[in-house]
Amino acid sequence: MRAMNTLTVALGDRSYPIYISNNLLNDPSLIRQHIQGKSAVIISNTTVAPLYLERVQSALEGLKHEAIILPDGEAYKTLDSLNQIYTQLLQHRFDRNTTLIALGGGVIGDITGYAAASYQRGIPFIQIPTTLLSQVDSSVGGKTGVNHPLGKNMIGAFYQPQAVIIDIDTLSTLPDRELSAGIAEVIKYGILGDADFFAWLEQNMDKLLSRDAEALKYAIARSCKDKADIVAADEREKGQRALLNLGHTFGHAIETGMGYGVWLHGEAVACGMVMAAELSHRLGWIEQEGLDRIRTLIQRAQLPTQAPEQITTEQFMDLMAVDKKVVDGQLRLVLLKDIGKAIVTDQFDRNTLLNTLDQPRR
Amino acid sequence: MRAMNTLTVALGDRSYPIYISNNLLNDPSLIRQHIQGKSAVIISNTTVAPLYLERVQSALEGLKHEAIILPDGEAYKTLDSLNQIYTQLLQHRFDRNTTLIALGGGVIGDITGYAAASYQRGIPFIQIPTTLLSQVDSSVGGKTGVNHPLGKNMIGAFYQPQAVIIDIDTLSTLPDRELSAGIAEVIKYGILGDADFFAWLEQNMDKLLSRDAEALKYAIARSCKDKADIVAADEREKGQRALLNLGHTFGHAIETGMGYGVWLHGEAVACGMVMAAELSHRLGWIEQEGLDRIRTLIQRAQLPTQAPEQITTEQFMDLMAVDKKVVDGQLRLVLLKDIGKAIVTDQFDRNTLLNTLDQPRR
Repeated sequence: MRAMNTLTVALGDRSYPIYISNNLLNDPSLIRQHIQGKSAVIISNTTVAPLYLERVQSALEGLKHEAIILPDGEAYKTLDSLNQIYTQLLQHRFDRNTTLIALGGGVIGDITGYAAASYQRGIPFIQIPTTLLSQVDSSVGGKTGVNHPLGKNMIGAFYQPQAVIIDIDTLSTLPDRELSAGIAEVIKYGILGDADFFAWLEQNMDKLLSRDAEALKYAIARSCKDKADIVAADEREKGQRALLNLGHTFGHAIETGMGYGVWLHGEAVACGMVMAAELSHRLGWIEQEGLDRIRTLIQRAQLPTQAPEQITTEQFMDLMAVDKKVVDGQLRLVLLKDIGKAIVTDQFDRNTLLNTLDQPRR
Repeated sequence: MRAMNTLTVALGDRSYPIYISNNLLNDPSLIRQHIQGKSAVIISNTTVAPLYLERVQSALEGLKHEAIILPDGEAYKTLDSLNQIYTQLLQHRFDRNTTLIALGGGVIGDITGYAAASYQRGIPFIQIPTTLLSQVDSSVGGKTGVNHPLGKNMIGAFYQPQAVIIDIDTLSTLPDRELSAGIAEVIKYGILGDADFFAWLEQNMDKLLSRDAEALKYAIARSCKDKADIVAADEREKGQRALLNLGHTFGHAIETGMGYGVWLHGEAVACGMVMAAELSHRLGWIEQEGLDRIRTLIQRAQLPTQAPEQITTEQFMDLMAVDKKVVDGQLRLVLLKDIGKAIVTDQFDRNTLLNTLDQPRR
């Protein structure tokens, strides 16, 4: 017997379950019950496939199936990789009853989800996220897509999976740096709308860093729950969902400015959250104590709190101007009134933003 | 005063109007009322832009706007063209409140619709179809996408426009061959489910070929109405909508086999409908008289009724096997019980299909 944590993302006829537990990849029936047709294609990368591909393949016995293995890294989240997937699906004649299975981190999840959204105008897919970041973030909410050289996630679709299967055991092989990057997004849920969870994280950060299974399960389930509630209320990001972008406008500028993959996404978001908190404090919103607690927790998670010195303030402003959060030419940011109280606003003084960006860099 | 024909495609919160009349491009308010943000980008091609771009641009005065002009032809309905659009949108910093405007035929409509579906995960768009084929087919129903070298329309999305504006006057500049290609899709609505309309077409084919404005308006409105009713009942092609693919599985095989653009889409569909009717007759379904009426009407419309001899029967079978209508390995075709009575079925004898394909070619 294992304790299975199952959440539901409530989106009407696009609702789907998220399973969170140990040892799920050894349960073929769990994967099979979410495949309706007679064929499936696993999409993974060169790092994850040697570890877990065989287990997922064994769940597909009796179906027509293939695996497509991409190189590992954000640098491959491109239209080119997507086109490779289309070509292989067509060469092997996979029809529109085929289920795609994303086995990997956020890059694999985003690109597989978008391949599923666009192949023959939409086929089903299942997410099996194997990094903490993808487990708590990109596998919940239906955002799929690829990068463009001029901007991250600029090409994509809102498209929901049939199911998300989170096997905690896959975290045992995750490098420390990626574990921390995932914790960044976990901390985000606390900061933006769940002050109790933030306090829990302050008490349990050491357990998370030492990969305590119960602590990880709790943090993942609570993060998924927080995100699922927000997504269910605002699937296509017309309002509240934009709060999930806390730290992302600054973070995307860092990722794009440094070149995709130099900073991990979670690292850039961690730094972006500190920058958002600093700007909020300068605007007279969040108190010094709240800012300090945020900075301290992020530091304890082995995450950066200062932007890279290679990116000038001018470049920052430039890079942020192409962000998807720009509406009719006006930059909108997620800022903080307090821990647990984020708002989306374009009501901030431009000079205060410039002063925040002029802070010392690392 | 002009008589304006307005239909509504009823899709809940994705419903949209289709306007059909003369002189619509000279009415800036019609376009403007369907643009919500402060920016718009017209996408057109090198054939249509010199004729109509200026008129549409004059409707955008006061907005931030640009035009992207692609080369003309199905050969450019590719991921590459799509990527050019993304690049220009990003270079000019068009945000997700930007409206795309498709000004051209089916290729421009499909690619613009898909660019709108995928840029920043979805932005609004307006269709201004300027060919008969796009007016009666691709601008109604939300199918968007691009071709892949291994298959037509293999990459795409279901995505609805804000409005479709059909200015009959644009047909005055359409070459005869493209007028006929459009009439092929008009005839399709009669054959698949509207026997009265088929009889009307038998009586009015000469008027359509001589571009009689009232006949064209009637044929376009009735075609759009027939299609809109089917789409409203089955937006994502789970059932009835598949009837709209009458002639398309054979037709796509011809288009792919000959190389995109050698046969016009409407020409390939016309021939495909005759092939579907021939197969149906061999199966003992449609009578000889119905088959003859179909072949005769298609011939009168200056359209081909025999497949090209360059494509062997074997190639045909091969090309049809990658069609989107293949479900779990089983080829499904739209066949005819009678004029006005089409069905989707995989219940046909393979040898009868082979014998149909073995017919004399042109």
